[in-house]
Amino acid sequence: MQKTMIPPDHITQIGKAFRASKALFSAVELGVFTALASGPRDLAALQAEIGIAERGARDFFDSLVALKLLQRDEDERYRNTPESDHYLDREKPTYIGGELDHFNKRGYPHWHSLTTALKTGKPQSLAKAGNYFSDVYSDVSVLETYTEGMTSGARLAAPGIIAHFPWNRYRTFIDVGTSQGGLPVEIARAYPHLTGGGFDLPPVRPRFERYVERNGFFDRLRFHAGDFLSDPLPEAEVLIIGRVLHNWDLNTKRMLLKKAYNSLPARGALIVYERMIDDQRKATVSSLLASLNMLIMTEGGFDYTAADLINWMTEAGFRDLHIESLTSELSMAVGIK
Amino acid sequence: MQKTMIPPDHITQIGKAFRASKALFSAVELGVFTALASGPRDLAALQAEIGIAERGARDFFDSLVALKLLQRDEDERYRNTPESDHYLDREKPTYIGGELDHFNKRGYPHWHSLTTALKTGKPQSLAKAGNYFSDVYSDVSVLETYTEGMTSGARLAAPGIIAHFPWNRYRTFIDVGTSQGGLPVEIARAYPHLTGGGFDLPPVRPRFERYVERNGFFDRLRFHAGDFLSDPLPEAEVLIIGRVLHNWDLNTKRMLLKKAYNSLPARGALIVYERMIDDQRKATVSSLLASLNMLIMTEGGFDYTAADLINWMTEAGFRDLHIESLTSELSMAVGIK
Repeated sequence: MQKTMIPPDHITQIGKAFRASKALFSAVELGVFTALASGPRDLAALQAEIGIAERGARDFFDSLVALKLLQRDEDERYRNTPESDHYLDREKPTYIGGELDHFNKRGYPHWHSLTTALKTGKPQSLAKAGNYFSDVYSDVSVLETYTEGMTSGARLAAPGIIAHFPWNRYRTFIDVGTSQGGLPVEIARAYPHLTGGGFDLPPVRPRFERYVERNGFFDRLRFHAGDFLSDPLPEAEVLIIGRVLHNWDLNTKRMLLKKAYNSLPARGALIVYERMIDDQRKATVSSLLASLNMLIMTEGGFDYTAADLINWMTEAGFRDLHIESLTSELSMAVGIK
Repeated sequence: MQKTMIPPDHITQIGKAFRASKALFSAVELGVFTALASGPRDLAALQAEIGIAERGARDFFDSLVALKLLQRDEDERYRNTPESDHYLDREKPTYIGGELDHFNKRGYPHWHSLTTALKTGKPQSLAKAGNYFSDVYSDVSVLETYTEGMTSGARLAAPGIIAHFPWNRYRTFIDVGTSQGGLPVEIARAYPHLTGGGFDLPPVRPRFERYVERNGFFDRLRFHAGDFLSDPLPEAEVLIIGRVLHNWDLNTKRMLLKKAYNSLPARGALIVYERMIDDQRKATVSSLLASLNMLIMTEGGFDYTAADLINWMTEAGFRDLHIESLTSELSMAVGIK
């Protein structure tokens, strides 16, 4: 019998990848990267500082080293990688651990029901018993994790949206489904001539106002309370709808795009950003799995390709449509009324 | 504000990797690869055959394409990759989906408690209420998943153990902690001059005997019932202890190696195979995470480096020690009495 010529590594690596996710989630939850942002620590000091038992500590930190989320030097002290320090230190404005917390607390346990979701075609989240978002928004601790997670996601999109849209041509903007206002704050920081704000369900108001005030933009960014399923959108020269459309079924997607068109003034702009699926539906792992996440979490949501979005925006009346890449995962479509 | 120069991709990919694991697990559970082993299918046919709802079907199969676990051709039909066909078709003797089922049913939900395991240093599995293995072995459905999983693991190790050990010098062997006998069957298939069998707890007997008989080796492979914590090991010229030592604390590891030494005849050989941690403890993601798995699952288990193992085997009396790589993850140590 010969040693097989087909290596199983690709399969076994995917099969064990969930362990890597959880090691990262626990490290964020326990504050490993925040602790190390102030300087390197040896095993005993790091273990004591984040409050874990001796038994698993060395394996845990060395797993993070092997995953290239930490470094361990010849002096046997652990330190952050440049990426970990930038994105996973809670004290930095570039922190994206909120999204990882959201994945940890909600995504991971709900994904255990993927097979049931596939068999039934029905969500396995709170949406089983009603509307996903009204349930998320009615529980303070769930809302906390959710809005922090959305802010982390907005931070990833912000640099590209700031760089690749002609903000100098406009004076006002509203972020629809803004959560804490993560994106408006970054836009306001980059362009002092802009005013605007965010639109979201009423329970989000105190979280938005606290976040915006803490960042020093309370004079330029306002919260507009409402439900985009039933209420009109606020008026502004630029509307942004980001990581929102994928939560909804096709009719609701179209209704929201039409509602945005109707709210905008002539020559106003709509920005839609999302993890779009490649047009061949063969390459974008993250977007296709995000669509399965919508199956598990929502009643009718799904992700889509840039071609799909261009079609729907054209149907709604938008012209001069184009797509810009924001990150390796996120893209935005821009359309003009 | 400039577009950030530090890409977040490495972090966000690890953070979402659990979704990829679950997509693979559901595909194995639903029999996607087994269905496609008989030929390509279009979306509707594959969806009907594995019995899932329309809503998530296309995203699910296209996710598997993006993950390079399936291919989709220009005729829009899905087919297995060479790897998926070899390892994930239930009807093939090279099937390793049992290990993925084991990860899905037991590993994934238990890993949700990683933070608690780290804080307390205590297992979060059945072992919370007693000995992990006596509990696993007392529940038929758990034992079923467990033994199938172990067989898949043994299949990955078998080609290397067959190729890199001088089996022609020996006549008898026993696999300690054999489960269904996955490894003895492959060794017996490769070397017709060998006889031997496997040693495991009594509830495993019918599963071992059924598996060995189905593979046609009932005349050459026997089951030996016992508990290696309290009973002596069966006699044979070669003993194998594979993916066993990592389940136990240091004293038990040493006791088992000494017990193996005492059971062997002069010039007998011990093979220990495991996912060993690299000596620098910086590179082997899979082994370090396997050690955290032992934290979550067992009372005292941990994974170890080849240098650790060589030390313990030397202490037990073995000589002529050497290490051989079996796969990208698994290695074996061989020692002579």
